[in-house]
Amino acid sequence: MSDPSKTAVCVLGLGLIGGSLLRATAAAGRATWGYNRSAGAVDAARAEGFDASTDLAATLARAAATDALIVVAVPMPAVDPTLAAVAEYAPGCALTDVVSVKGPVLDAVRVHGLAARYVGGHPMAGTAESGWSASFPELFRDAVWVVGTEDDSDPAVWIDVATLALDCGSVVVPAEAREHDDAAARISHLPHLLAEALAISGAGGGDLALSLAAGSFRDGTRVAGTAPDLVRAMCEANADALLNALEETITVLSLARTQLADQRSTAELVTAGYDARRRYEAATRTEISGITPGEPGWIDLLRAAGRRGGVLRSL
Amino acid sequence: MSDPSKTAVCVLGLGLIGGSLLRATAAAGRATWGYNRSAGAVDAARAEGFDASTDLAATLARAAATDALIVVAVPMPAVDPTLAAVAEYAPGCALTDVVSVKGPVLDAVRVHGLAARYVGGHPMAGTAESGWSASFPELFRDAVWVVGTEDDSDPAVWIDVATLALDCGSVVVPAEAREHDDAAARISHLPHLLAEALAISGAGGGDLALSLAAGSFRDGTRVAGTAPDLVRAMCEANADALLNALEETITVLSLARTQLADQRSTAELVTAGYDARRRYEAATRTEISGITPGEPGWIDLLRAAGRRGGVLRSL
Repeated sequence: MSDPSKTAVCVLGLGLIGGSLLRATAAAGRATWGYNRSAGAVDAARAEGFDASTDLAATLARAAATDALIVVAVPMPAVDPTLAAVAEYAPGCALTDVVSVKGPVLDAVRVHGLAARYVGGHPMAGTAESGWSASFPELFRDAVWVVGTEDDSDPAVWIDVATLALDCGSVVVPAEAREHDDAAARISHLPHLLAEALAISGAGGGDLALSLAAGSFRDGTRVAGTAPDLVRAMCEANADALLNALEETITVLSLARTQLADQRSTAELVTAGYDARRRYEAATRTEISGITPGEPGWIDLLRAAGRRGGVLRSL
Repeated sequence: MSDPSKTAVCVLGLGLIGGSLLRATAAAGRATWGYNRSAGAVDAARAEGFDASTDLAATLARAAATDALIVVAVPMPAVDPTLAAVAEYAPGCALTDVVSVKGPVLDAVRVHGLAARYVGGHPMAGTAESGWSASFPELFRDAVWVVGTEDDSDPAVWIDVATLALDCGSVVVPAEAREHDDAAARISHLPHLLAEALAISGAGGGDLALSLAAGSFRDGTRVAGTAPDLVRAMCEANADALLNALEETITVLSLARTQLADQRSTAELVTAGYDARRRYEAATRTEISGITPGEPGWIDLLRAAGRRGGVLRSL
């Protein structure tokens, strides 16, 4: 059933993201198989006709034999041992990952000597659920999939990883690991910390305050309802970038406090915040085209296009 | 057309809230008329068959002659001159207001010697629009309407104001001005400041960050899209309570920063935020019943019921 002209895909970890990736790549007509440490997801995947195993060595040996693209889809704490196994059983394969933070994964990849054939990835997709049972092939449809674009990225692997994202229905945003992590801290991790703080303030007002709460509180605290373990894993994996964003925001709020106390005014914060939200609302995704991975300067061209808010919809 | 057994209503200010109140009280079968400083809203109201005037003295003289309930529905900066006119032309009338902050209005009412027949109010309802043209009679349907419950509140006026809220389709939450303002700072004004700060952080990441933004950023910044003038008026009128809430939140975020820097952990903030959001989600409005305004201890009983998250659905 699979198309032999397309690179085979080996997915390590069959949770929400990895499981959805196994389904999406199979639906795209690619040879695809997966590994999961616990048997539950493997049995469930097999029962649905997917090719899955709890044997990591055998799974990787198969990837090495067929020159498959290996996708690390385990939580951050399991990345290091997983990469150790890749280095042992399939060090020559093209390698990517779908972990929500890119700098720490890249560092680990370098430690294991796998950087030459690694291009990181982060599909900005998810649901409140987790595990194989929550996975579905359309999870990545119309999502943004960041593809790591480092100084030493291999153009062939970059194309492999971008093709994987496009095959799953996503658009590709090229970005350096550091820039991705800074952006993710601002638009994905900081929102969680502020939502937690707002929820705490509301509850600090007791049942009276909670009974008066309306739309602004409901929306502003929505993601505080996410399971603490998921929020912690996401935020703590990106601790360095998140610290910068948090520090900046504390400074912004402290200046607002001073202005409110001294001048009874919120003008500066409110005006800047309104302008920023308007900029977000007005942002349009321009299409990146005419850049061929491997041509002179392709890394800088792709990064610059990503910084301008561009996306790749095809290669 | 109006029911002579019901207290007549004199609405001062025919913007979104005052205009909706004129419509809602008319729909409830009450004699009702309004004043607005600018002729545009008055002409528009008259064209729709409502009784409206730009003559404040005449409007108030009519309230005095019929012992109407006067509702101050002007923005906070116009409260003081409006109360001066009430003190001059209709000092004996029952008096309420629909301004979003209660302590400063109560202070102004005291300055003008109108406290004996004043009971404050705040319907927690609104839209992104403003002005008479945006008003509609169902604005208050199923909203929470805070009715001020001070040590010296007159039970007859309290009943008048609560009846007004119920007639408009709202439920009544009894609360002292100070407690209302503290709660509003936490669940209505602080959410705006945090949304502004989050929007600033996202835009600080440039177009790349904005192109990666998903649901948590979109929801967390939604109210930063509110017109700056409206946000400023709301926040600055409640400056004292908002400063407390903001100070508390900066402290919470600063502790989180320290924990993240020193222990690479967000455990404390995330766990407390999750618990707080759960408490909000689980909050149920209990019905207040069996308390008769004027009976011994009624003020304390109503306040305590409000603090427990209770609402009055009938008198």
